[in-house]
Amino acid sequence: MDYFPAPLKRLIKELSRLPGVGSKSATRMALYILNSRRELADSLAKSLVEVKDQIKFCSVCFNFTDTDPCAVCNDAGRSGNIICVVEGPGDQLAIEETGVFKGKYHVLHGVLSPLDGIGPENLKIAALLNRCNSQEIEEVVLAINPTAQGEATSSYLADILLRKNIKVTRIALGVPVGGDLKYMDYMTLRHSFSSRTPVQQ
Amino acid sequence: MDYFPAPLKRLIKELSRLPGVGSKSATRMALYILNSRRELADSLAKSLVEVKDQIKFCSVCFNFTDTDPCAVCNDAGRSGNIICVVEGPGDQLAIEETGVFKGKYHVLHGVLSPLDGIGPENLKIAALLNRCNSQEIEEVVLAINPTAQGEATSSYLADILLRKNIKVTRIALGVPVGGDLKYMDYMTLRHSFSSRTPVQQ
Repeated sequence: MDYFPAPLKRLIKELSRLPGVGSKSATRMALYILNSRRELADSLAKSLVEVKDQIKFCSVCFNFTDTDPCAVCNDAGRSGNIICVVEGPGDQLAIEETGVFKGKYHVLHGVLSPLDGIGPENLKIAALLNRCNSQEIEEVVLAINPTAQGEATSSYLADILLRKNIKVTRIALGVPVGGDLKYMDYMTLRHSFSSRTPVQQ
Repeated sequence: MDYFPAPLKRLIKELSRLPGVGSKSATRMALYILNSRRELADSLAKSLVEVKDQIKFCSVCFNFTDTDPCAVCNDAGRSGNIICVVEGPGDQLAIEETGVFKGKYHVLHGVLSPLDGIGPENLKIAALLNRCNSQEIEEVVLAINPTAQGEATSSYLADILLRKNIKVTRIALGVPVGGDLKYMDYMTLRHSFSSRTPVQQ
């Protein structure tokens, strides 16, 4: 017999639907919310509804935004001649946090996955090709996650873009900083060797 | 410059206030919510408000409940002569999940902590003593977490209850099942030895 009151059980169930949240963490969060001031629950609830109401896709790069075009696409200080292609909005954020890239982005919203029925028409590929046709694009940087499906998507895009005479680059694959060679997988080490770079004096 | 839209930043900030959620997990959750159907955000938001609206303290045991007295206090199948004292509602849940205890509970809502200004008057101790005065209580099981402050609280309660001629017991402290002696702390091992139990043939 389960003695937890129904509204608490419902909240635990709702919280468990979030990624990385198991029933133990969900219980901990729910009890914390119950023990906290009412304001915490209210402002979280408000924020959840607000984010769904106000956030749309940018019509240029397809990232999440509350203005259209988004702040990145609108930023005159960034080069419009170089586009970085990423799988999802989280990947774009990770790159932005490094501050290393000063061009524009294009968010694919997934990768090719024939077994799951995801083909080129389900991703924002046509829109990417339109951007490349209509603008002066000098380089497309592929920063798609190096999974098997991500690799297939990168090759697919590279093929099409190279035929349009656009310079295509990929972010380097290799041993991560702080990594340990003896725990590295075969494919990463192989990439690391074949993409080795000359050391300057 | 941060290019995340404001409503998304707000949601990430709100989610980071939950226990065990850092900014990376909060970002992951927020992006997941954005990518999911609207229903997920709505029902989570509804659940958050509902839990604060409907859940109160049981006037007998002070656990969270949506009825008063709570389902455990109201359960005629459970012995009312034995009370298990716990620190918080989460502890009661953990005990309930084992199914090992068939008495009633009393939730203290904290432990004594003079440095933080938490004295006996800030916990549900007076209510516990009232229950012991007014009812036929035969045994109080102390199941307070064995931290330094929990131990002090246990001793404090044991002192008062023993003077009222109530039998006081404590849950056993020792090596957890699946634990490894060589990684166990000194105090746990000491307790484990001093509370050793005879093995039956």
